[in-house]
Amino acid sequence: MKLSKLYKEIVLDDSFNNWKKLFIYYMQVNKAHTLMLKKARIVSEDILAQIAQALRKIEKEQIGGDLPEQVEDLVFLVERRMAELIGVEKAGFLHTARSRNDVDATVFRICVREELMRFCRYMVTLVEALIQKAENSIETLTLLYTHGQPAQVSSFAHYLLSFVFDLIETLDALYQSLHTVNLCPMGSGAITTTGFPIDRKLVSDYLGFSKPVENSYRAIVTSHWIIMPSTVLKTLMNDLTRLVQDFIHKSSCEVGILQFPDDLVQISSIMPQKRNPVVLEHIRIRANTANGIFNTVEQSFMNTAYQDVNENGDFVLFKFLEAVKIAKEALQLAQEVFQKVKVDENRVKDLALKTGATTTELADELVRRFGISFRQSHSLVSDYVKAGMKYGVIKEKFEQLFGMKFNLTQEQVNEILSSENFVQVRKVLGGPYKDQVLEMIKQAQMRTKDINEKLLSLSEQVALSLTRLEKDFDELLQPK
Amino acid sequence: MKLSKLYKEIVLDDSFNNWKKLFIYYMQVNKAHTLMLKKARIVSEDILAQIAQALRKIEKEQIGGDLPEQVEDLVFLVERRMAELIGVEKAGFLHTARSRNDVDATVFRICVREELMRFCRYMVTLVEALIQKAENSIETLTLLYTHGQPAQVSSFAHYLLSFVFDLIETLDALYQSLHTVNLCPMGSGAITTTGFPIDRKLVSDYLGFSKPVENSYRAIVTSHWIIMPSTVLKTLMNDLTRLVQDFIHKSSCEVGILQFPDDLVQISSIMPQKRNPVVLEHIRIRANTANGIFNTVEQSFMNTAYQDVNENGDFVLFKFLEAVKIAKEALQLAQEVFQKVKVDENRVKDLALKTGATTTELADELVRRFGISFRQSHSLVSDYVKAGMKYGVIKEKFEQLFGMKFNLTQEQVNEILSSENFVQVRKVLGGPYKDQVLEMIKQAQMRTKDINEKLLSLSEQVALSLTRLEKDFDELLQPK
Amino acid sequence: MKLSKLYKEIVLDDSFNNWKKLFIYYMQVNKAHTLMLKKARIVSEDILAQIAQALRKIEKEQIGGDLPEQVEDLVFLVERRMAELIGVEKAGFLHTARSRNDVDATVFRICVREELMRFCRYMVTLVEALIQKAENSIETLTLLYTHGQPAQVSSFAHYLLSFVFDLIETLDALYQSLHTVNLCPMGSGAITTTGFPIDRKLVSDYLGFSKPVENSYRAIVTSHWIIMPSTVLKTLMNDLTRLVQDFIHKSSCEVGILQFPDDLVQISSIMPQKRNPVVLEHIRIRANTANGIFNTVEQSFMNTAYQDVNENGDFVLFKFLEAVKIAKEALQLAQEVFQKVKVDENRVKDLALKTGATTTELADELVRRFGISFRQSHSLVSDYVKAGMKYGVIKEKFEQLFGMKFNLTQEQVNEILSSENFVQVRKVLGGPYKDQVLEMIKQAQMRTKDINEKLLSLSEQVALSLTRLEKDFDELLQPK
Amino acid sequence: MKLSKLYKEIVLDDSFNNWKKLFIYYMQVNKAHTLMLKKARIVSEDILAQIAQALRKIEKEQIGGDLPEQVEDLVFLVERRMAELIGVEKAGFLHTARSRNDVDATVFRICVREELMRFCRYMVTLVEALIQKAENSIETLTLLYTHGQPAQVSSFAHYLLSFVFDLIETLDALYQSLHTVNLCPMGSGAITTTGFPIDRKLVSDYLGFSKPVENSYRAIVTSHWIIMPSTVLKTLMNDLTRLVQDFIHKSSCEVGILQFPDDLVQISSIMPQKRNPVVLEHIRIRANTANGIFNTVEQSFMNTAYQDVNENGDFVLFKFLEAVKIAKEALQLAQEVFQKVKVDENRVKDLALKTGATTTELADELVRRFGISFRQSHSLVSDYVKAGMKYGVIKEKFEQLFGMKFNLTQEQVNEILSSENFVQVRKVLGGPYKDQVLEMIKQAQMRTKDINEKLLSLSEQVALSLTRLEKDFDELLQPK
Repeated sequence: MKLSKLYKEIVLDDSFNNWKKLFIYYMQVNKAHTLMLKKARIVSEDILAQIAQALRKIEKEQIGGDLPEQVEDLVFLVERRMAELIGVEKAGFLHTARSRNDVDATVFRICVREELMRFCRYMVTLVEALIQKAENSIETLTLLYTHGQPAQVSSFAHYLLSFVFDLIETLDALYQSLHTVNLCPMGSGAITTTGFPIDRKLVSDYLGFSKPVENSYRAIVTSHWIIMPSTVLKTLMNDLTRLVQDFIHKSSCEVGILQFPDDLVQISSIMPQKRNPVVLEHIRIRANTANGIFNTVEQSFMNTAYQDVNENGDFVLFKFLEAVKIAKEALQLAQEVFQKVKVDENRVKDLALKTGATTTELADELVRRFGISFRQSHSLVSDYVKAGMKYGVIKEKFEQLFGMKFNLTQEQVNEILSSENFVQVRKVLGGPYKDQVLEMIKQAQMRTKDINEKLLSLSEQVALSLTRLEKDFDELLQPK
Repeated sequence: MKLSKLYKEIVLDDSFNNWKKLFIYYMQVNKAHTLMLKKARIVSEDILAQIAQALRKIEKEQIGGDLPEQVEDLVFLVERRMAELIGVEKAGFLHTARSRNDVDATVFRICVREELMRFCRYMVTLVEALIQKAENSIETLTLLYTHGQPAQVSSFAHYLLSFVFDLIETLDALYQSLHTVNLCPMGSGAITTTGFPIDRKLVSDYLGFSKPVENSYRAIVTSHWIIMPSTVLKTLMNDLTRLVQDFIHKSSCEVGILQFPDDLVQISSIMPQKRNPVVLEHIRIRANTANGIFNTVEQSFMNTAYQDVNENGDFVLFKFLEAVKIAKEALQLAQEVFQKVKVDENRVKDLALKTGATTTELADELVRRFGISFRQSHSLVSDYVKAGMKYGVIKEKFEQLFGMKFNLTQEQVNEILSSENFVQVRKVLGGPYKDQVLEMIKQAQMRTKDINEKLLSLSEQVALSLTRLEKDFDELLQPK
Repeated sequence: MKLSKLYKEIVLDDSFNNWKKLFIYYMQVNKAHTLMLKKARIVSEDILAQIAQALRKIEKEQIGGDLPEQVEDLVFLVERRMAELIGVEKAGFLHTARSRNDVDATVFRICVREELMRFCRYMVTLVEALIQKAENSIETLTLLYTHGQPAQVSSFAHYLLSFVFDLIETLDALYQSLHTVNLCPMGSGAITTTGFPIDRKLVSDYLGFSKPVENSYRAIVTSHWIIMPSTVLKTLMNDLTRLVQDFIHKSSCEVGILQFPDDLVQISSIMPQKRNPVVLEHIRIRANTANGIFNTVEQSFMNTAYQDVNENGDFVLFKFLEAVKIAKEALQLAQEVFQKVKVDENRVKDLALKTGATTTELADELVRRFGISFRQSHSLVSDYVKAGMKYGVIKEKFEQLFGMKFNLTQEQVNEILSSENFVQVRKVLGGPYKDQVLEMIKQAQMRTKDINEKLLSLSEQVALSLTRLEKDFDELLQPK
Repeated sequence: MKLSKLYKEIVLDDSFNNWKKLFIYYMQVNKAHTLMLKKARIVSEDILAQIAQALRKIEKEQIGGDLPEQVEDLVFLVERRMAELIGVEKAGFLHTARSRNDVDATVFRICVREELMRFCRYMVTLVEALIQKAENSIETLTLLYTHGQPAQVSSFAHYLLSFVFDLIETLDALYQSLHTVNLCPMGSGAITTTGFPIDRKLVSDYLGFSKPVENSYRAIVTSHWIIMPSTVLKTLMNDLTRLVQDFIHKSSCEVGILQFPDDLVQISSIMPQKRNPVVLEHIRIRANTANGIFNTVEQSFMNTAYQDVNENGDFVLFKFLEAVKIAKEALQLAQEVFQKVKVDENRVKDLALKTGATTTELADELVRRFGISFRQSHSLVSDYVKAGMKYGVIKEKFEQLFGMKFNLTQEQVNEILSSENFVQVRKVLGGPYKDQVLEMIKQAQMRTKDINEKLLSLSEQVALSLTRLEKDFDELLQPK
């Protein structure tokens, strides 16, 4: 190689730095391939033993520093080192029946799989923390809004659980995308496999994949391994921006329903009542940015030929990894917010009363109690509200209109209009009444547990595979 | 209502036109709610019978023309008509224990479900047609490229099956997204359900949903019902742009591997050899546009508060529907392309020879036959290629280098270098050898059949539900 | 032509409907080209006179209905009609020295130019209306926020003028983009001009362009004519979403600074205090959607070859036009909002007091009056605020700290803390003090007037050119 | 401050690292503000002299290492250091009549201005290099394509100049965006200026801005300073992806018009004819990625309130800077490609002949020479081409059809069909004929020179301002 200086500086050096972070996965691929070459009797045991010893040595030496002048990338650097150790001819046998393409694709998929498993496991933690918060907020009243205007009273648990189910749906989709990722390209060669009698299933098993990619061309050219998880993570970030905007609104000075401790708030030295929960904006910025970078990953593939393209390379992969990191930061900040946020219930009740957020219930109750029509009842209550909620008004109007006695006392009316009652009567599936919230919590826990178990099982299967890989590789090292 | 003239022209009239297309779903929701009100004994049977008769009448009258001046939207127009028919008080009972919010959300989800089921079923057809094409192309040679340069020979079936598995993965994800869509919001009221003893499960069953949305706030505020399918359809369009760019390359005048019949080609009157398969560009444009509009749908929700927002309304929904329509057109054009495209095998063999696309196989064969090292073999073959593929050169160099007799005749070497042999020896899982391709076809058929069965089962379940809805509703109409 | 049925239905019929809207521009191009062919003596006067008569006839007949089976598009339909009128040979002369490519590119640029001029003129109206509103709001106090928290008092004029200058900056950039659009492709032929001695300048002048595109390849392949205005319009929509979110916040029930008349508000039948300015959400949705479709237009070109591509065709153009229409609607709704919105000054003063939004000024005033340090002053005022703004506290603390007499009366302190004073003292360039606001208004008016004059001048030049085109074309019709 | 540990790690530490790169600009702002405070007699000369000395000392010490536990950011760190040097009270005077908001906004605008000036100057170099390449390619034939099919012959200069004019248009727009950026926010305070008699013009002049932002609210809340340049840079990257795709096509093995030296090509060890110009893909990837990150910057602002938001902060700014860096790399790689690419003229002529890319000219010439109709001529030439370009065929058919003698010899016909002639006769404005290309080069040079001069003048003005700033600041340091 003698590539242009500028090309080296801009492309190769950058790529080399990326590959240093992929080194461990690259070595796993080398080991699995070496074991397969032996099992399939493609290369002699003696040569493979020497290759294995060289690989182990290189693994211990690590790769550091800058990319040397005459070397194209980390893979060639490893090759060169191996040639120094056992001679160029023997070293060359490692590349029998494989290609740079299937090696790269496999390394990238291992990397994404590891990131996603870690991210999913973190999401489980987050969901569990939110469910825990919901459990502690079953009796905590809150005010919910539509179109920015106060609408109805509910419990904070009911509100949080809405987002919990959104999270679970996304977590589930992210877990599904792992199935797309966790297929093994090895053995696809450049694009059409090879004439050697390789065993793709064996390599796939050693590396913890569920199975080889079904079609060798696809193994190299598809973008699904990176786009499928990207789209789900984008949706997650989208949801997060929405929740944050809601929290910003609810914690504004005038609304004042949500409150944060000092360590998440910027305080003005001169305006003590100004408590700016600036952390919310920082979540929003990160969620938007992560969303944008995931989108960049997707868009990079648009209108590129359905061939082996470099978009399926480390440059785009590392943008994806950057976005995953930012997304994780956004979620971590959000988790801290969830843990520390407090609801000011007095403010909730006060606002509920002032904004008539419970009057629907009075109208409904009159329908149920007196059998009057829905429309008449609402009209009656509306007059009552407009008249400043004077008991006399509703009583008089009611009796005049329906010719029945209005046998509710002032206390009973107030009780019906109370925030507590509003929540209490909403016993319907999905509503804020305690039993229903407990049912939702149970359901959310079950679904989370279910995904978590599948995740753990996958993690274990991968760990076992890699352990077996190391163990069998160790045996290769032993002289016969 | 007396809303501003401009507001009516820009917002209300547009929305009214959208709702005319949703009318049928809106009436289904009305019927299901009416039946539930009866079953749950929330409204008297007599009133419900009159409501039912009015609904049936309105259903037959249809809604047409422009939105009248004093009416806000189609829902109010239906209400007004019902009031004309049975009086405003009785008509009002239909709205007991429901809200505009849950009605809208339910109508939108039914609409998206119907679109997605139709789209998925079409995708099944498309996949089956492609598999059929692959079956007919198992022996058809083609040349595959990496980074725009000829790389290796394969079969056209092998190439098409790569895309088939991409399609199946997307189809599967789209089917998964249907689970997100097919939950019933009805009974969520404005956001917190209601104090009436409604039966959400019953309404959900009547409308063919799998179950009610778990949380009533979420039923109104989540964007997943529209974003989850959008992200999958975006990926599908992304894939399509890639395949089309590949087809454009392969059908270019200089490459000439793919050929199209006259009815998909623009011919220049003066340059008879200029055959421009312009249909490919039109697929690309539509795929990019659909991708962009789906992205618009997603982005619309970014940074909107996690509340009841109008982004969950008909305006954004109809952008989604427009994108679905364009996506469908792109796929239909693609299907026609798949059906009619032909491979010029002579051109394939000619190019394969000229570009040395099969020489890898000669090197591999020498390794296997003579036990020489991979690296030496490749170096030898490289010299042979550089020398213009002269038999004498390889024979002489081989014998000189390894001191063995080169016992392959010129015919044998040519045979090894033939495109047919290149494909023939690639017997590995996922490769182009006939048996492997048949295995892939079998797998693809099974997976498609599996999804298709799930789709059919869902369609049937929905159809049965709606039949039961109509039947039970008919009974409501009968006087007792 | 005998193109595939599906291709006709999806591609050609759609394109035909688009071209019907471009017919007028296509005829302008035909006329200009005919006049040039005469002036450059490329075709005989006699033939051109017959062509001219045929064109006039076709122009009057209009093009309607569906695309006939055997015709590819509107241009061929016009050709066919002309052949009917004057024979196929003579009709053919119209195409001398031109190509479908330069004709299309010219028609599209005329269309975009007309749309942009109209849009820019509307933006001028909008800016003027906003300036007018600002003029009427110079003394109207408002409260301004940072990070969602009340920060400082200002005038409503000051606030609106901020957006006015954003609008002017965008309008200016949109006007600049017109220079990119208003270049004439005619004469570029397919991509390399022609061997005929055509006069590109003449055609350009007739059609009101500023000059021919400098390079004939570029005339066909560049995307700037559609992307450059798209990017500016995207920014405009982005700004609009931000202002709308601010208005939503300021008109929320709890903040209550902005108020809207009934005809822009949805009122709940039961909660009279719930006044939901839903129009704001509808602006937001349209602004996001237009932004997204403009983005779709841009993205369509990504990774398409720098050649003559169909992305430079009517399909993408009509998406652009759709986005322009939606953008215009968003602005029209916004204009109505600007006209009708009212500031509740009592609420402003009340909130300002409660949130200490003017206390900065008291600290600043103490610095100026007593020469104490900024930091000490702020610390003192902070204590005063924390103590509930009790006059005694500040007086005592001040005298104790600085050993000076605190010679401000309670009235003076209140006066300093008043919203009116806060604005009054901010006499700095760009601040809310009346004179500065008047200066901003003057500046904004001058810049708007300047752009408007340039727009009018451009419109007039185009109108004059087209008038000359028609006049000269009429002369062609006369028999010699 | 005692902010949460997680918040510090994720938000503050990251921001601190960003601000270290902004330190130099922050110090410039400090100096300009100090000088203004003196000129406007707001703070005593003695205190300002001490502040100035402290600033100079801090400037020399630099800021390094990690953010200390109890400090929020770099600005507070500088403050703390200043308090150590001259006491907290005196240090506090620096903040008289300014706010964190206007300081930040000013620092960010200086940073973006510097980046853009540097980028624009680089673009000038690139454009000049391309013009130079065009000058050297005036006589170099190339084949140009439409819709992926060979269309017409031109000169390589003509082709390159198309992109040159695109670049100039973008450069011009980028320069225009500098006017939006180069306005000074200082003096806007938090959002409404201040009651102190500050001189915003003076600070603006010292920092090299053209003038203060017109409206103090806008100075803090607008996003134009970052979005306006982003949109232009996005378009530039879009254009680049298109050119690169065209180069990839033209340098494909089968087309073979463009060739690259070994140092930009990946060579396969076994397929010597496989020359993969992988650098083109790396340009494409970077252009797509930069485009995507600029888009992320834009989208971040969507639906955020038109207030002081943290999106106008260092996090988003540094994403912008990252995208600028990637965009620059893409352009640098492209420049290397432009310098080193070679056209294979023999291949051009060969392809031109084979694909009939010059036959249009024969038809046109017959029209001009014999006065026959365009349509008849093309039909005749078409028959000739279909018959394999046999001279006898055209001669016979012509004479039969028109009853005239076909007085062109075979050599004359071949001459007319030659690539050289095709270019030679295209003498029209914007066409490939030498004189026209020279005219385009002149025009391109003039426009580039014009922008370059404006850039130099701006750079000089900024440099002079900053020199004056340092000089006047030095005087402040001197004891009186």
